[in-house]
Amino acid sequence: MLIALTACADRQMGGVHVPAWVSDTSSYGAALAPTFTIADRYREVAAKIIDTARKDRGAYAKLAHLTDRIGARLAGSPQLNAAIAWAAQTMKDEGFTVRTEKVMVPHWVRGVEEAALVGPVSRALPVLGLGGSVATPKGGLTANVVVVRDWAELEARAAEVKGSIVLYDVAMPPWSETKGHYGYGVAVPYRSRGASRAAKLGAVAVLVRSVTPNSLHTLHTGSMSYDPAQPKIPAASVTVEDSQLIARLAAQGPVQIRLRIESQLLPEAESANVIAELTGKEQPDEIVVIGGHLDSWDVGQGAHDDGAGCVTMMHAITVLKRMGLQPRRTIRVVLWTNEENGVRGAKAYVKDHEAELAKHVLAVESDGGGFAPRGFIMLARKDVAPRAESRLTDILSLLRPLQSSRLINGDRSGTDVEPMAPHGVPTLEILSANAKYFDYHHSAADTLDKVDPGELAEAVAAMAVLAYVVADMPERLDAPLPVAPARVPTPDPPRALIPPPDKSK
Amino acid sequence: MLIALTACADRQMGGVHVPAWVSDTSSYGAALAPTFTIADRYREVAAKIIDTARKDRGAYAKLAHLTDRIGARLAGSPQLNAAIAWAAQTMKDEGFTVRTEKVMVPHWVRGVEEAALVGPVSRALPVLGLGGSVATPKGGLTANVVVVRDWAELEARAAEVKGSIVLYDVAMPPWSETKGHYGYGVAVPYRSRGASRAAKLGAVAVLVRSVTPNSLHTLHTGSMSYDPAQPKIPAASVTVEDSQLIARLAAQGPVQIRLRIESQLLPEAESANVIAELTGKEQPDEIVVIGGHLDSWDVGQGAHDDGAGCVTMMHAITVLKRMGLQPRRTIRVVLWTNEENGVRGAKAYVKDHEAELAKHVLAVESDGGGFAPRGFIMLARKDVAPRAESRLTDILSLLRPLQSSRLINGDRSGTDVEPMAPHGVPTLEILSANAKYFDYHHSAADTLDKVDPGELAEAVAAMAVLAYVVADMPERLDAPLPVAPARVPTPDPPRALIPPPDKSK
Repeated sequence: MLIALTACADRQMGGVHVPAWVSDTSSYGAALAPTFTIADRYREVAAKIIDTARKDRGAYAKLAHLTDRIGARLAGSPQLNAAIAWAAQTMKDEGFTVRTEKVMVPHWVRGVEEAALVGPVSRALPVLGLGGSVATPKGGLTANVVVVRDWAELEARAAEVKGSIVLYDVAMPPWSETKGHYGYGVAVPYRSRGASRAAKLGAVAVLVRSVTPNSLHTLHTGSMSYDPAQPKIPAASVTVEDSQLIARLAAQGPVQIRLRIESQLLPEAESANVIAELTGKEQPDEIVVIGGHLDSWDVGQGAHDDGAGCVTMMHAITVLKRMGLQPRRTIRVVLWTNEENGVRGAKAYVKDHEAELAKHVLAVESDGGGFAPRGFIMLARKDVAPRAESRLTDILSLLRPLQSSRLINGDRSGTDVEPMAPHGVPTLEILSANAKYFDYHHSAADTLDKVDPGELAEAVAAMAVLAYVVADMPERLDAPLPVAPARVPTPDPPRALIPPPDKSK
Repeated sequence: MLIALTACADRQMGGVHVPAWVSDTSSYGAALAPTFTIADRYREVAAKIIDTARKDRGAYAKLAHLTDRIGARLAGSPQLNAAIAWAAQTMKDEGFTVRTEKVMVPHWVRGVEEAALVGPVSRALPVLGLGGSVATPKGGLTANVVVVRDWAELEARAAEVKGSIVLYDVAMPPWSETKGHYGYGVAVPYRSRGASRAAKLGAVAVLVRSVTPNSLHTLHTGSMSYDPAQPKIPAASVTVEDSQLIARLAAQGPVQIRLRIESQLLPEAESANVIAELTGKEQPDEIVVIGGHLDSWDVGQGAHDDGAGCVTMMHAITVLKRMGLQPRRTIRVVLWTNEENGVRGAKAYVKDHEAELAKHVLAVESDGGGFAPRGFIMLARKDVAPRAESRLTDILSLLRPLQSSRLINGDRSGTDVEPMAPHGVPTLEILSANAKYFDYHHSAADTLDKVDPGELAEAVAAMAVLAYVVADMPERLDAPLPVAPARVPTPDPPRALIPPPDKSK
């Protein structure tokens, strides 16, 4: 009741006139209106947000600056520092409360990378070091290649592996429209853990088929991790085409490769998470986090991964602010640093904000590319998940005009928000129409031209609605459900499962 | 009649038993059988050829050797010499009469190529010199960029062009399924003639957006020609992504690029056309030419362009020979040299064989990629075209099981066969299902894995049927039509025009 009265009394927000079409949601509450859903209450304002955001190209303009003017943004690079400064200043200029929070990040730097087939044919072999790879011995190394297609074959050929370069020629299954599925998870473990698994058997280096279903001789990088118990050996990707070439040649006889990698791991560098807030008018200490990661790999422009995610969230609060919408709770945009090769930003956020996590009512990430939104995947602690799922199903029905109302209660969400889940914060990641995501991901082809301004605007619309409703509704998203639950709208017709977007590590 | 009698008497071919299912086509002739079409007479043998060739993966095995073991084959390179030697030996080993015919070819060699955006942002800019480009001054050059989208804009901005680098940011329209059309012709003139057009206005170099509708940061090269009346300035391609980036930046202010190209034009090199024959059993001096070009650009493997065309023709006669089929006339496989940057092989062939061209009854090229065949495009002299078209329409109906019976009487055919058309030889080029051709064309992505073995086998089947029937039928393809023409089968239902496959220059 107090909530309702307060809300009624407060139809002005910081001097901004509240437009007439902002629904009076002040009487909302399970006890008062068991037959009204959250969606019913917010339908009009949601439609206005969607309409406004869909026409707005501001997110794309932000992305153009981030990608064209700043470019790729690997942890520790001057470009990431420039991106942090730009994002903070941009949101300040738009009138938000902004701060940066210091995070120390790894500082891995790519150097000369070159390779060649030296037998049975001589041919240049473009390679792209995996993030974190150690260098080859000075001057490079030359060795025979053992081509394997899975861990079992690696183990079975242990005797040959000793002293050799192992090539993991593991094909990433293409996007399946019928399954709504891509095969990143099939191939990526060989990139992540292949070096140490091969080093354990005496390999001197590993090459990994680029993790992508489609290639135009395109190199893809990504993170890898070393098992501290094994020797560290260099690791680089080759193109899908060259991986298949080497496999064909190796099926016919010995293949020799020369490899030279000169990467360096420098002392850790200072970086920062960028935090901006649209402060809540009633419970400013209750927080809805929305964000993406500002770092990228050092090739391409980091447009889909994850420039698009960052500008989606930056612009979602801008749209709300420009519309004169200030929700009850605070919407906090967090642009994490170093998701790609360390996840230090997300770890630091959870540590620095541990005391405050009980006041986090939701955390949402966009890290599956700036494509049209299709829904969300949720990771939440078991005791919290049913409450959040019930309310989110209701709220997301508002996104039907965007075909974005699906909710999957799964075993993951976004890399940067997942660490909040054990603390009881429901976490989400946007599901997007990302069938082409892995064509570009972690490659020189992840550039602005691959992002459609209209689709990006739809993602902004979806996020603005979700963040506004969760931040504004009288009840917390994770509050205990009423005994007689509100009517939940008919769920969307069943569709093939869309699995979660990419985990970048 | 003589023909008929001779054919009846000669049911044995060089010790090879003629299978029973080879149709007795000896009684064929317009005067004798006005109601029987050529297709009627050859239906059974054509079906057998198609069945045999479709199951055969020999063409793909040849292509695998050519691409994986020999690789890219630019005119003047040791690789092209190796390909010539391999092709000649392969066909000799299969029992064909083989010779090589010397051709002098240009010998352009790519050197160091590097570029960078130096303002307003600093970024590496991968470039790929166009074939034949002169070098930059030693140490490279740095200049402002003028971005244009067509010739009119180039002319309109003549004052700015002086002393600048011109970037032709011309998008190649994508494949249109409804039009059956790709937009190569829209974009390629800027690659071919852009340097001299810009040099005329004082430009110091040109960059060209890679001529492709799809890019994953992929560089495409190709030929260019200099107008002797203008200064020669260096020319290189940039990726579609970078071209758009530069255009976006240039729309906001000055853009500077540093460019260094160290290519060389060496003295002409000795090369050769490779010629192999399945000798005709009755009119061995009458010739059906089928072929492709053995040279390629120096990036990728030249798999679709035009390794696939070469092995299609090499294997078509192999299939016929293994089936015990020896036609009346000679089928001659010609693998031309230097199609890509000079067309010297085709010019030499016409010159060296000028006296013999009257005995050429047909010349067919495959140079649109090793995709499934869909028909043929014809260029023939006006007096010859109606006769050839009439008979080919009939013959190609035999390729309906391959969906390959379309005939377009157009204004072009294959680059290497076109020079024969003015001499009265009907010339054809295979139309193929090549919607993806320009994704790979002239790039590092033109590799074996892009060729489907089954589709390649269908091309072999189509060529073997066409070549066999034209070489075997009693009348010449270009003979005057009978007064009462034979019944022609119902034409295929009308479809959107499939324009001719790529002209590589």
